[in-house]
Amino acid sequence: MPGLELLFLSAEDVAALDLSAAEVIEAVEAGLHAHGTGQVVLPPKDHLDLEQQHRGHFNILKGYLAPIDVAGVKVIGDYLDNHLHDLPSELALLTLYEARTGVPRAIVDATELTWMRTGAVTAVGARHLARRDSTVLAHIGARGTARCNVAYLDSLFELAEIRVTSRRAESRQRFAQEMAEAVRAPIRVTDSVEEAVRGADIVVDATRLSREQVLIRNDWISPGALVIPYGAVRSTDPTLPILAHKFVVDDWRQAAGSPFGQYSTAIADGILRRGHVHAEIGEIVAGLRPGRESDHELIVFWHRGFAISDIALGVLAVDRARERGVGTTLVYSAQARER
Amino acid sequence: MPGLELLFLSAEDVAALDLSAAEVIEAVEAGLHAHGTGQVVLPPKDHLDLEQQHRGHFNILKGYLAPIDVAGVKVIGDYLDNHLHDLPSELALLTLYEARTGVPRAIVDATELTWMRTGAVTAVGARHLARRDSTVLAHIGARGTARCNVAYLDSLFELAEIRVTSRRAESRQRFAQEMAEAVRAPIRVTDSVEEAVRGADIVVDATRLSREQVLIRNDWISPGALVIPYGAVRSTDPTLPILAHKFVVDDWRQAAGSPFGQYSTAIADGILRRGHVHAEIGEIVAGLRPGRESDHELIVFWHRGFAISDIALGVLAVDRARERGVGTTLVYSAQARER
Repeated sequence: MPGLELLFLSAEDVAALDLSAAEVIEAVEAGLHAHGTGQVVLPPKDHLDLEQQHRGHFNILKGYLAPIDVAGVKVIGDYLDNHLHDLPSELALLTLYEARTGVPRAIVDATELTWMRTGAVTAVGARHLARRDSTVLAHIGARGTARCNVAYLDSLFELAEIRVTSRRAESRQRFAQEMAEAVRAPIRVTDSVEEAVRGADIVVDATRLSREQVLIRNDWISPGALVIPYGAVRSTDPTLPILAHKFVVDDWRQAAGSPFGQYSTAIADGILRRGHVHAEIGEIVAGLRPGRESDHELIVFWHRGFAISDIALGVLAVDRARERGVGTTLVYSAQARER
Repeated sequence: MPGLELLFLSAEDVAALDLSAAEVIEAVEAGLHAHGTGQVVLPPKDHLDLEQQHRGHFNILKGYLAPIDVAGVKVIGDYLDNHLHDLPSELALLTLYEARTGVPRAIVDATELTWMRTGAVTAVGARHLARRDSTVLAHIGARGTARCNVAYLDSLFELAEIRVTSRRAESRQRFAQEMAEAVRAPIRVTDSVEEAVRGADIVVDATRLSREQVLIRNDWISPGALVIPYGAVRSTDPTLPILAHKFVVDDWRQAAGSPFGQYSTAIADGILRRGHVHAEIGEIVAGLRPGRESDHELIVFWHRGFAISDIALGVLAVDRARERGVGTTLVYSAQARER
């Protein structure tokens, strides 16, 4: 036999693939559909916690996606102080495996893919849970990791205004400038969260707080809005998901078992429970549970992110790279055989 | 900044490093020492279980080794039917990360390294738990993955005889032939487990049973022997670790939390408990708990394997590869920076 080969895709290789919003959203939505119909194996993500040693931790996500018969593991660091070293706070490595044999097939820098799949889950959520006639998007947080949220939502909705705010004036100005070229709707920078949120149809919170606080007050949120608070630390009132007409998650078991995430404290304290969850997004995508049913519903969609989206998008990237001859082929084992 | 680089080591690269028994054992023992003194972060290994889909599963091991300040994740498949595809049942990929920033630094084929670190843990265990004057080694199981057990034990003890047995005559004959060149002691193939075990000073069970059975009967084991049953499925009497004078493990929390491993059923059934454990091997290596104290003790050492050994050995391999210019340097991200 010819030995085993691996495809390696660097950050630049992934960027060279020029994956469009539409195809990224389609791949990720197919993954969510599989999740909703039970065609996945998805142990909860877990963590290697080095907060005491280095103010950082690794998230380790693993899963299996039956429709494409691929297994994958993503390791992603989360280091708050990395900007001091001129490094992204999150660097990710995704490895993909033949599910039939366990043979590794690809190693992919998943740093940008993580942003893309996160934006795609935001977008798929909005497609099913926002009002179709949504015109105002409020985006809280201006980290580059959030660019895909805005770009993909802009591709799905006829937005009249994108409002952007963040803690530092400099960062929101830069974010707005960067995004202006990538979206159709005009972007307006606001100085306060209240100004961004009041009257918005879709509110996305992508902040990175160092401790829980109420950045977005319940009474600022319009009736009929969709709120997507996916920052790792709680930024809404803890009652928001309970008061909402519908509270949608990506994977309750994973969310409930993790020490990290927007509502992890609320779950640990017993305030937020399984009974508050209307559906997992995959069930809605698959048509097993209703999405938005009226213009008056306030809906909260909390996604933590899971391996299924990484695998679905990673396979799209690898297939495209093979078609185009992008990436580095490595001989993993020239003579692998049972001994 | 110059961008981020990764070192990739294939199976052939690892083989080209020619790591000696002594240095492998030294690296792994240093890892065990760190474990014993609490200088590690080691969440229990977990699993992506595809037994229903493909009669296979992945073990996912992650850890942090403080003395060398490196984090690592190993993904290793375990597919019983892989020999039908002319593939090893276990293929492994180890990724190593800067613990300070989460930046990936190396990707290593850890298939052979897994065998080496397993053999090294067996050897370190025997150094502390076998009689110094042990002369007869019985090795049950003839898979190639077990070669390091025999080679490393042969390097540490003045053996008069190595007895090898296995289920299939053909496999034990081949194993004995392959090993003959690698060891100092004469090798004798035996047709029965009883013949191998009776009178042996060190008994290693590296079988791969498809269901639990008593392959090694308690009354065949000599007083003063060390038994190392590390096969994934129970091959001894379930009472053996309880009747032994000392029962030593590598990491009790991991062992107790896993659905796989020699004594996992005994633990799940409540037969085998924390109270039966004399020590973790790292505590003995670090001098915090006694190893063997008399020639008459029957000692059982059960190791499941943990990420600390993989990281310790992986770093040795990577350092050696860098010294010798072995491996492939990959640009992971030419322009990684916070955005």
